[in-house]
Amino acid sequence: ALRGLRAAFALPTRGSVAPDTAPAAERDAPTVYLCGNSLGLQPRAARQLVLEEMDVWAQRGVNGHFDHPEGRPWVAIDETVVGKMARVVGAEAEEVAVMNSLTVNLHLLMVPFYRPTAARYKILFEEKAFPSDHYALESIARFHGHDPADALVLVSPRAGERTLRTEDILKKIDEHGETVAVVIFSGVQYYTGQFFDIKTITAHAHTKGCVVGWDLAHAVGNVPLWLHDWEVDFACWCTYKYLNSGPGSIGGAFVHKKHGKSQDRPRLAGWWGHDKVTRFKMDNCFVPMSGAAGFQLSNPSVLNTVCLLASLNVFEQTTMTELRAKSELLTGYLELLLQDVVLKDFPGVFTILTPTDVAQRGCQLSLLFTSGNVNALHRDIEAEGVICDKREPDVLRIAPVPLYNSFGDVQRFVEILATVLRRHAAAASAGSA
Amino acid sequence: ALRGLRAAFALPTRGSVAPDTAPAAERDAPTVYLCGNSLGLQPRAARQLVLEEMDVWAQRGVNGHFDHPEGRPWVAIDETVVGKMARVVGAEAEEVAVMNSLTVNLHLLMVPFYRPTAARYKILFEEKAFPSDHYALESIARFHGHDPADALVLVSPRAGERTLRTEDILKKIDEHGETVAVVIFSGVQYYTGQFFDIKTITAHAHTKGCVVGWDLAHAVGNVPLWLHDWEVDFACWCTYKYLNSGPGSIGGAFVHKKHGKSQDRPRLAGWWGHDKVTRFKMDNCFVPMSGAAGFQLSNPSVLNTVCLLASLNVFEQTTMTELRAKSELLTGYLELLLQDVVLKDFPGVFTILTPTDVAQRGCQLSLLFTSGNVNALHRDIEAEGVICDKREPDVLRIAPVPLYNSFGDVQRFVEILATVLRRHAAAASAGSA
Ligand SMILES: Cc1ncc(COP(=O)(O)O)c(C=O)c1O
Ligand SMILES: Cc1ncc(COP(=O)(O)O)c(C=O)c1O
Repeated sequence: ALRGLRAAFALPTRGSVAPDTAPAAERDAPTVYLCGNSLGLQPRAARQLVLEEMDVWAQRGVNGHFDHPEGRPWVAIDETVVGKMARVVGAEAEEVAVMNSLTVNLHLLMVPFYRPTAARYKILFEEKAFPSDHYALESIARFHGHDPADALVLVSPRAGERTLRTEDILKKIDEHGETVAVVIFSGVQYYTGQFFDIKTITAHAHTKGCVVGWDLAHAVGNVPLWLHDWEVDFACWCTYKYLNSGPGSIGGAFVHKKHGKSQDRPRLAGWWGHDKVTRFKMDNCFVPMSGAAGFQLSNPSVLNTVCLLASLNVFEQTTMTELRAKSELLTGYLELLLQDVVLKDFPGVFTILTPTDVAQRGCQLSLLFTSGNVNALHRDIEAEGVICDKREPDVLRIAPVPLYNSFGDVQRFVEILATVLRRHAAAASAGSA
Repeated sequence: ALRGLRAAFALPTRGSVAPDTAPAAERDAPTVYLCGNSLGLQPRAARQLVLEEMDVWAQRGVNGHFDHPEGRPWVAIDETVVGKMARVVGAEAEEVAVMNSLTVNLHLLMVPFYRPTAARYKILFEEKAFPSDHYALESIARFHGHDPADALVLVSPRAGERTLRTEDILKKIDEHGETVAVVIFSGVQYYTGQFFDIKTITAHAHTKGCVVGWDLAHAVGNVPLWLHDWEVDFACWCTYKYLNSGPGSIGGAFVHKKHGKSQDRPRLAGWWGHDKVTRFKMDNCFVPMSGAAGFQLSNPSVLNTVCLLASLNVFEQTTMTELRAKSELLTGYLELLLQDVVLKDFPGVFTILTPTDVAQRGCQLSLLFTSGNVNALHRDIEAEGVICDKREPDVLRIAPVPLYNSFGDVQRFVEILATVLRRHAAAASAGSA
């Protein structure tokens, strides 16, 4: 059932990405796009949906909120995506909201879920978390009057290692658990590509009485998630990476059912979280919807929502289990070729930061180049038609996405990488000769 | 310079709004759109900008963040609108950020600006504030451990009156000022259309040591604002009403320069507020940009931003002063015709809630129908080609927008209203005969 899904996405062409260097005959050829971990490709259907919404706005103005020719009245536009979104993260529909953006949702969810007391006020997470999460959590600790140096418990890899061992995370939870209010990790680490054991970590932290949240930016649409069954308390994500909703598009949030009806926890409220039936009664008596929807604040962007809809409609044609099966093969193939083709000729030119254990990674492999700087390499493979992510100074992140990448993409990438490395080596030895 | 600006907007047609009732010859005729207070019309240029961004995403993928054929790299997409936005609200560019949505921004700005102490912890605002603001402020008080019944000081109209007197607001500030942390009002009241005296109220609350914020949802793009000169501390707004950026589009925020560099106040942080030069260094040491930009959390929606850009480009062809001059005439004309044509024939059929004092209103007039229910009336004037906002049970809000509405629109609206009222009266007397 995966056959044909690639055709649902617009592949950037070599001519538009590198107009100066793409050979004339190759201008219309697709690039090898391995950057879905940063920005997913455009679902071809998105353009049509966006145009439809632009037309409704132009032709009906405000009436589009209630009277919509395509059956997507804007007042309930989130309902077009919530169920499909829930399916991708292994949640019930009422556990999911599509709203705001990732860092905003992290802050909004920490309001009910981080309830520091004198005895239990710490936040346990990774030392090398994505900066926005780090800034956010630090600012939250400060806001509650805590010194981040005291309130933030950071887990680091062992000396000489690059990724975290589950046992070390559990041990850290054991050591600090009694003082930790919230444990929060990324599902898949943005830099190393490590896929954490969400179920085990969540369950373990629960035994210590901690609330457990997850930033799923790099996990959603990449690996199968079962947030409900895993008893995750809350989670948030963006949808512009593996969910292909476009730059800066709308975010997602998960609140486990067991918390969804409770009003014991404070929340920052807004009218879009108010009971739909009485939302426009305007009597200023806040009655939240149950579930994640009750955490919405503002009416959501229609254009962003329908871009996400276009993508989720593709996900509906398959399952995360099926995608994961292909993903393991695809990334395994990448790993194999890198070893067989590149590392054999250029021993030690890079090391792979990502765990070799398939269960501990998503689709991305992160290559740390020992030469120390990947700028020239990145420029030159891009000129040959590869789009991938560079993390300065020395890392390339390569993400073959099972939804639209092929084994051929992986093969071409590795060939191009090898060719460019060969060229660089020749130039270097010519230079030193 | 206003001549021709109407042509920059897409006017809904009668056929698309009321396919069943529009006469065949009138299907392509424009509706009388008087609902810019709810959702502004689509700037015609928005469609092209949106398509350009969809093309960049389709053709370049992630590279659009840095390498953009139209000179709008997404990584700095907010820079395409911030200066133009600042001009509309009377602010310096560094005082303005375009981000998130309105209620989100209200919450984010209350973090630094509402710093309750034992002695000063109250929030003073209108009894009949827009529900989202009411919910938000109530939830903020609760979050800080206060009982809203104690912490929220609400200002109400005098008995028998519908709008607030500035003197009463100032008096309330005098009475409670010592215990009030934040005074927050809407610039233009959503229901009554009252335009508050932002300068006077802000200055007065400052003499009592209060911080002063404004929700400018119905003020921005409607009335001239001089937020910087008025020494407003903070403000937030949406851009889908008088700023015509489309359903659920991006919000705005203002932080006065005098607060922009201070790090004394806590904030909820995110990577998009981090110094641009080092944002991607990822060293997890938060250094905010100075000004409002430092309050950004997430990378913003590109589609929403360019819709706003299309609208602000129209605003650039004029000034708020010029728009206001037309607006006073246009709304004055509406008021006059309503009195001369409608109220003369149907004395007392409605009262106008909006102040008659031009200085105390924006473009909107709110008509309170004494019959008690406007559903049939609203339906029937819509069938004749009028789009305006109904607030159940008994209010119609009529907003002639100087940017795209004409005196002819006002005239047609009044004629249609009179015609429908006549028809209803005839039907009623036939029914009772
Ligand atoms: C005065 C006022 N405040 C707040 C809001 C809520 O806006 P949003 O849904 O964009 O947060 C509105 C929406 O119309 C409004 O008119
Ligand atoms: C793991 C992670 N967290 C947070 C963010 C911040 O996302 P946003 O700008 O949408 O808030 C990102 C963005 O790439 C991310 O990868």
